[in-house]
Amino acid sequence: MLAITLLTMASDPLVVGVDFGTLSGRAVVVRVRDGLELGTAVHDYRHGVLDRALPDGRPLPPDWALQVPQDYVDVLRHAVPAALADAGVDPADVIGIGTDFTACTMVPVKSDGTPLNELPEFADNPHAYVKLWKHHAAQPQADRINHLAAQRGEGWLPRYGGLISSEWEFAKGLQLLEEAPEVYAAMDHWVEAADWIVWQLAGTYVRNACTAGYKGIYQDGYPSADFLSALNPDFADFVSDKLEHQLGQLGDRAGGLTEQAAGWTGLRPGIAVAVGNVDAHVTAPAARAVEPGQMVAIMGTSTCHVMNADVLADVPGMCGVVDGGIVPGLWGYESGQSGVGDIFAWFVEHNVPPEYHEQAKARGITVHELLTELAAQQRIGEHGLIALDWHSGNRSVLVDHELSGVIVGQTLATRAEDTYRALLEATAYGTRVVVDSYTDAGIPVTELVIAGGLLRNPLLMQIYADVTNLPLSVIGSEQGPALGSAMHAAVAADAYADIHAAAQAMGSVKRGVYLPIPANVEAYERMFVEYQELHDYFGRGANEVMHRLKARRRAAKGE
Amino acid sequence: MLAITLLTMASDPLVVGVDFGTLSGRAVVVRVRDGLELGTAVHDYRHGVLDRALPDGRPLPPDWALQVPQDYVDVLRHAVPAALADAGVDPADVIGIGTDFTACTMVPVKSDGTPLNELPEFADNPHAYVKLWKHHAAQPQADRINHLAAQRGEGWLPRYGGLISSEWEFAKGLQLLEEAPEVYAAMDHWVEAADWIVWQLAGTYVRNACTAGYKGIYQDGYPSADFLSALNPDFADFVSDKLEHQLGQLGDRAGGLTEQAAGWTGLRPGIAVAVGNVDAHVTAPAARAVEPGQMVAIMGTSTCHVMNADVLADVPGMCGVVDGGIVPGLWGYESGQSGVGDIFAWFVEHNVPPEYHEQAKARGITVHELLTELAAQQRIGEHGLIALDWHSGNRSVLVDHELSGVIVGQTLATRAEDTYRALLEATAYGTRVVVDSYTDAGIPVTELVIAGGLLRNPLLMQIYADVTNLPLSVIGSEQGPALGSAMHAAVAADAYADIHAAAQAMGSVKRGVYLPIPANVEAYERMFVEYQELHDYFGRGANEVMHRLKARRRAAKGE
Repeated sequence: MLAITLLTMASDPLVVGVDFGTLSGRAVVVRVRDGLELGTAVHDYRHGVLDRALPDGRPLPPDWALQVPQDYVDVLRHAVPAALADAGVDPADVIGIGTDFTACTMVPVKSDGTPLNELPEFADNPHAYVKLWKHHAAQPQADRINHLAAQRGEGWLPRYGGLISSEWEFAKGLQLLEEAPEVYAAMDHWVEAADWIVWQLAGTYVRNACTAGYKGIYQDGYPSADFLSALNPDFADFVSDKLEHQLGQLGDRAGGLTEQAAGWTGLRPGIAVAVGNVDAHVTAPAARAVEPGQMVAIMGTSTCHVMNADVLADVPGMCGVVDGGIVPGLWGYESGQSGVGDIFAWFVEHNVPPEYHEQAKARGITVHELLTELAAQQRIGEHGLIALDWHSGNRSVLVDHELSGVIVGQTLATRAEDTYRALLEATAYGTRVVVDSYTDAGIPVTELVIAGGLLRNPLLMQIYADVTNLPLSVIGSEQGPALGSAMHAAVAADAYADIHAAAQAMGSVKRGVYLPIPANVEAYERMFVEYQELHDYFGRGANEVMHRLKARRRAAKGE
Repeated sequence: MLAITLLTMASDPLVVGVDFGTLSGRAVVVRVRDGLELGTAVHDYRHGVLDRALPDGRPLPPDWALQVPQDYVDVLRHAVPAALADAGVDPADVIGIGTDFTACTMVPVKSDGTPLNELPEFADNPHAYVKLWKHHAAQPQADRINHLAAQRGEGWLPRYGGLISSEWEFAKGLQLLEEAPEVYAAMDHWVEAADWIVWQLAGTYVRNACTAGYKGIYQDGYPSADFLSALNPDFADFVSDKLEHQLGQLGDRAGGLTEQAAGWTGLRPGIAVAVGNVDAHVTAPAARAVEPGQMVAIMGTSTCHVMNADVLADVPGMCGVVDGGIVPGLWGYESGQSGVGDIFAWFVEHNVPPEYHEQAKARGITVHELLTELAAQQRIGEHGLIALDWHSGNRSVLVDHELSGVIVGQTLATRAEDTYRALLEATAYGTRVVVDSYTDAGIPVTELVIAGGLLRNPLLMQIYADVTNLPLSVIGSEQGPALGSAMHAAVAADAYADIHAAAQAMGSVKRGVYLPIPANVEAYERMFVEYQELHDYFGRGANEVMHRLKARRRAAKGE
């Protein structure tokens, strides 16, 4: 109704969504009445991911992954004006801006929001930088948190599948305290980047309910000072000193755009700035997948799974369940696979011999496309391989970043397309494990809705349909998260009553694009049994060789 | 004494040794009195290994590996004259010729030695060709033989470590009977290529005691007709009809060189032709390693281990023990690793990205050398990987060609040099398993004597010393097998009383070239524990996933 009303207005209201990814930020300009994407632009982070050294060359230990906050501001300064120019619209027609971010990505700041790495005394201290989601060096702290929480029977633990991740706020915070107490002491807030960027836009710090719940262990309250003190006496006041802050609900207005941010973006001061959000979670409404049973898989570097349900259930190994964590009024569940697209990228960059590169170049296609084409000619099982997709550890259902990749079955006849296909399949088995964990917990998954860059690989999509035995729907937009953020901006600007209405008007999805093929389902069922057996052997304690290999690697590197 | 006598003769007597490998044959001209190698030449087999198709293009199933007998004769016609020319000697000074061959490599022939593939009616029948040692398609037959022999408690079974191989005479013979009964019926003899080539030289078929014992299950007699009949009634007379023949001892004279063979080689008719022998076994005397405890590892595409002992022991999983199988008067033991150098070659050819190839080319080194250089900079365990070296199956101690390669521990930080080093180490662990199996059986290994092309890699050698905690000696000759064959020719020509005397005069070895480094030994001891655990998990029935993967691969390929 509102959309029709808007049609009658002199100018068509617009919103801007900005998606902050792992390597770049993307802005999109969207028409409020129908979600039409009018223009877009991407800006790469100048420093990318710092995983080997600080900008000054100071080397980093393995499993570290840092970022530079100023790179995020540069996205506002470059990508937003570029997207407006690309759209050819009048910036004055923009009524709101929304953002989404990787999570859990943490910025240590002073009380005014200044990141600690921008203080001269901390510029050479790695702990003063942003700890990106894939910073995995806080695993020992995560282990202690999990052990203690299980021992004490902390009520919040089942809400996180029984294990919290080394990627999250408490593990990273405890690492900060213990490895750099001087940085910890100087820090006034331990802020999700999702909220820090909103702070830069609206001039006010609002903690979004989504990351507070999923990454900050907020379940009608945080873990107790008593619990924290048992971890480390100096950690007792972590919540009250560093974490606790006013919460904002998804789609709420965090504030109005500041003059400074208006200067960066070219937008009008005072327009609505939506409460921060997470890339995966904003994508669900963008794909109109907000009903129970519709699992959205955002497949890129890693995969995030989000699904709503009207009941609260304990799903073993899930990342978390948060009331209203995706849309108000439903329990929002999240799971994830730590490595998906990055495994394929690693394989292509570091494991494929010259002739494939030459052939792809000669044909004007990518090596991914060539390998996909060759792999697609194979019958299921023909490569004789089975792989575990843990090159970046395992986020669901094992929640163990000390795990690593495995390939079984190589022979002298194994070629690049064989291993490539085995890796595609391994990630599909990983998704299947997640899907089964929901269904087994009494929340059946009835549909997989795919978003993210990997949906462009039809072989991969068919494998996912066959391995999960689920129909695959595909998001209609190529920039799901940015569109989802723009939809939240529209709600924050009161153009829609709620995110359900915005999803209906602005979201888009193609249903049943890939359907399971019964013969393939049957063949993969047998392969999945193999995957499960290796999954449990290497992942559930029968042989902790992966842990020992990582420990020895660290010891050999003198860390 | 004899050597000194020879010195006083007008011309210096010479011998020729010819080593028939997997892809080519090498001839070497050697001075009898001191083993000096005067000239050498190599001739590639025109058809190489037929593992995808017959020469007429007819496709072959997987695991097949055939050869063409005429390619062997071409080695006599080309490599021998070329080696004589290279030496610049008078062929009239050559007093004998000796040969060694891959084993078990089988030629089906008519009574006059004509290979069946040379008969027009069989030219398009794969079963009429030579079944090369690495033809692994007779595994089902080997399984049945092993099962039945164990069930019946056949006395010969422990002599082969409790399992005979699909590579050997009986398994390949049974496959021939069952898959091509018409070829089987037309075959008068099932002949080791080692003996077939001697037949071509001397005009007479003498079955050498070495392959008869190791590959032909001859232990003071062959398996009984009763046993064979229980395998397949039509197989009852296999021994008497196809296999049994006059035996010759190693170093014996099989006959004199025929006029025809003299024409091929440029040698004098009537000179001594030594009884056939096997590449690995002739290498032991060439490396002066004929004492108990001296294990010779001939490391190339695969590795063969041979060692003498003065006692008979049951070594689990060994390839075999034969009285006088290496030198007269001692028990000759054999074990082996199916894949070693071919795994490294496969890795370099199919798993290394372009920049390594470019860098190696720019520096004028091989990719192997580049990867070795990079891997040598690592500390033990730094790569975080552990691999199983079963890309070609496992010959010792598991004797199972359905096994396959595994790599555990890959992350997005894994680079080619990491995996390369892990594969080098995996083959060293494989050797360690073999060494331990001897020591545990009461025949301690005290020294590893390395021969074969891989001795040129110093990193690999040091890893072997550290993993086995044994001093490594290195053969003095670059063509150990051909030299060993030449030594047997000298014995056959009565230039030496026996092979011991010939080894003393003509063999050469450098002792203690690589010594174990205690800190490395300790570090590898821990890694070897991991290897053993995975070895037993995948190799001893806990998880038979490799068997199932191979079965599915065959099914998917429609075989």
